Amino acid sequence: MIPEKALLVTIEHALGTLPYPQSPSSLYEPVAYTLDGGGKRLRPLLALMTAAALGADPATALHQAVAMEMFHNFTLIHDDVMDRSATRHGRPSVYASRGAVQAILSGDALLSMAVSELAAEAGDRLAAALDLFGRVSQGVYQGQQYDMEFEERADVTLAEYMHMIELKTSVLIGGSCAMGALMAGAGADVQTAMYDYGVALGLAFQLRDDWLDTYGDPAVFGKPIGGDIANGKKTWLHLRACELDPAAMASATAITDRDARIEAVRAVYDRLGIGDLCTQACDSLSEQAVGSLAAAGLTEEYAEWFAALARRLATRDR
Amino acid sequence: MIPEKALLVTIEHALGTLPYPQSPSSLYEPVAYTLDGGGKRLRPLLALMTAAALGADPATALHQAVAMEMFHNFTLIHDDVMDRSATRHGRPSVYASRGAVQAILSGDALLSMAVSELAAEAGDRLAAALDLFGRVSQGVYQGQQYDMEFEERADVTLAEYMHMIELKTSVLIGGSCAMGALMAGAGADVQTAMYDYGVALGLAFQLRDDWLDTYGDPAVFGKPIGGDIANGKKTWLHLRACELDPAAMASATAITDRDARIEAVRAVYDRLGIGDLCTQACDSLSEQAVGSLAAAGLTEEYAEWFAALARRLATRDR
Repeated sequence: MIPEKALLVTIEHALGTLPYPQSPSSLYEPVAYTLDGGGKRLRPLLALMTAAALGADPATALHQAVAMEMFHNFTLIHDDVMDRSATRHGRPSVYASRGAVQAILSGDALLSMAVSELAAEAGDRLAAALDLFGRVSQGVYQGQQYDMEFEERADVTLAEYMHMIELKTSVLIGGSCAMGALMAGAGADVQTAMYDYGVALGLAFQLRDDWLDTYGDPAVFGKPIGGDIANGKKTWLHLRACELDPAAMASATAITDRDARIEAVRAVYDRLGIGDLCTQACDSLSEQAVGSLAAAGLTEEYAEWFAALARRLATRDR
Repeated sequence: MIPEKALLVTIEHALGTLPYPQSPSSLYEPVAYTLDGGGKRLRPLLALMTAAALGADPATALHQAVAMEMFHNFTLIHDDVMDRSATRHGRPSVYASRGAVQAILSGDALLSMAVSELAAEAGDRLAAALDLFGRVSQGVYQGQQYDMEFEERADVTLAEYMHMIELKTSVLIGGSCAMGALMAGAGADVQTAMYDYGVALGLAFQLRDDWLDTYGDPAVFGKPIGGDIANGKKTWLHLRACELDPAAMASATAITDRDARIEAVRAVYDRLGIGDLCTQACDSLSEQAVGSLAAAGLTEEYAEWFAALARRLATRDR
């Protein structure tokens, strides 16, 4: 079995040696800055590991795996403009350091570079890869649209929230698994099984993110705790609590003082056991991801790696 | 020979019946609004007419022709955000009517839709079409980058300006001709000849635009005259005048009062004969475009249509 670390080294090398047009440097420097910004490289790792698990040389899917990571980074550049986010991966965002105009244009350049990377050495799988990429892309845009619209709405349901994060986060993670399967020459059923695995994994990942923002250890998580509550974000915790005790949530979220509001909302969560409910939902989703693997027909050691990853991400502390 | 009007009807029909995801409507409505906004449809017309001129059924290149128009419209949506432009084709821009955030996200969705449209029914020409599309896209972004940087610079040369407008405008027009040739199954030499035609045509088109902004008839041109001078835009007229009499241009452009500045700069232009020099440069470029046609081996009637188009655009009054 190919070690995860070897694939991560391959991914960093491929990202670090991408061909850029020589000029204008101001256009491509923010692209290189973003791709150099680290992150978990979860999407290309899943694509390459899927290809390997299906018996292919991971090199077969390398350009396409890197294209998924490039697309992901393009969305981060534009999301940071739309959300006016000053930091990304612990560094100034392109938006904050180069301005909105440069972030828009360099983001566009990165999206088109991702398409070109997707096409590289795709052979007779190019049309199918592009089709998958196109569906994933529209899903991500739709998720971002819903996310922005939910901020303005007071009646968002938990089901709507799950649909939104599936589009905004999970479709790209599932799509990365499916891309690896596609490039490995797997049939539609195996592609679907790996896609379903990635979608459930992505949902568990996002719910754990919601949990960590309230219940994480700030020293380990690396971010201040309570930001979601303070900003009135409609997370899984918030929406589940609103289902169980809308009156208590209405009172707690109406408190003006930031710290008092965090404390009051958290007290409601604790009384309702929201933290445990979220952990259970996370576990359930990671087991759903593991269950999807059965239809992919992986060898035992690879199936174990994918199962362990799902459980690791659903219980991570940072 | 296929009439231009028949191709324009085909293009409008294809643009009007594009498949959109059903929701969220707020994401795709600005896309439909933009594609419905008219314009000359020059790029898809050139692609289809090139395919026809090379003996192919224009339907062979229809998806790819429409993709070029979609890409063009995507650049308009994002350019209007970057330039804070309130109007486009005589209507409120997406930026002005839906806001910057929506314009960014709907523009992204349109770019990805354009890629999917490019791939539709491309058959074994998909890889080559994507390669051309990728090079054209990066050229357009580079042109926009230079355009923005030139605004901040006082030492832009005429050669730099021509390079910028070639990237920002001409590469997409030349690329549309080359796309039509590629989809018609033409060889590299014919693709290059049609690309060169389109690039020279695009340069003539832009220089005529510069000329019209100062010397056009406002009643015919449809825009107020003198906007470029008032805004200190580094057009062909401005840069050529700076070459010939930098001192006079420095004095004239330093005048604070808007109308007085327009009058003074125009007086310098008139004394130096800049209007005629621009007309000559336009004519020279349109003849260069016509000259490129020789290597494409078109039948006489199609060659005449392309030559007439180049001369028409280089001498247009609006």
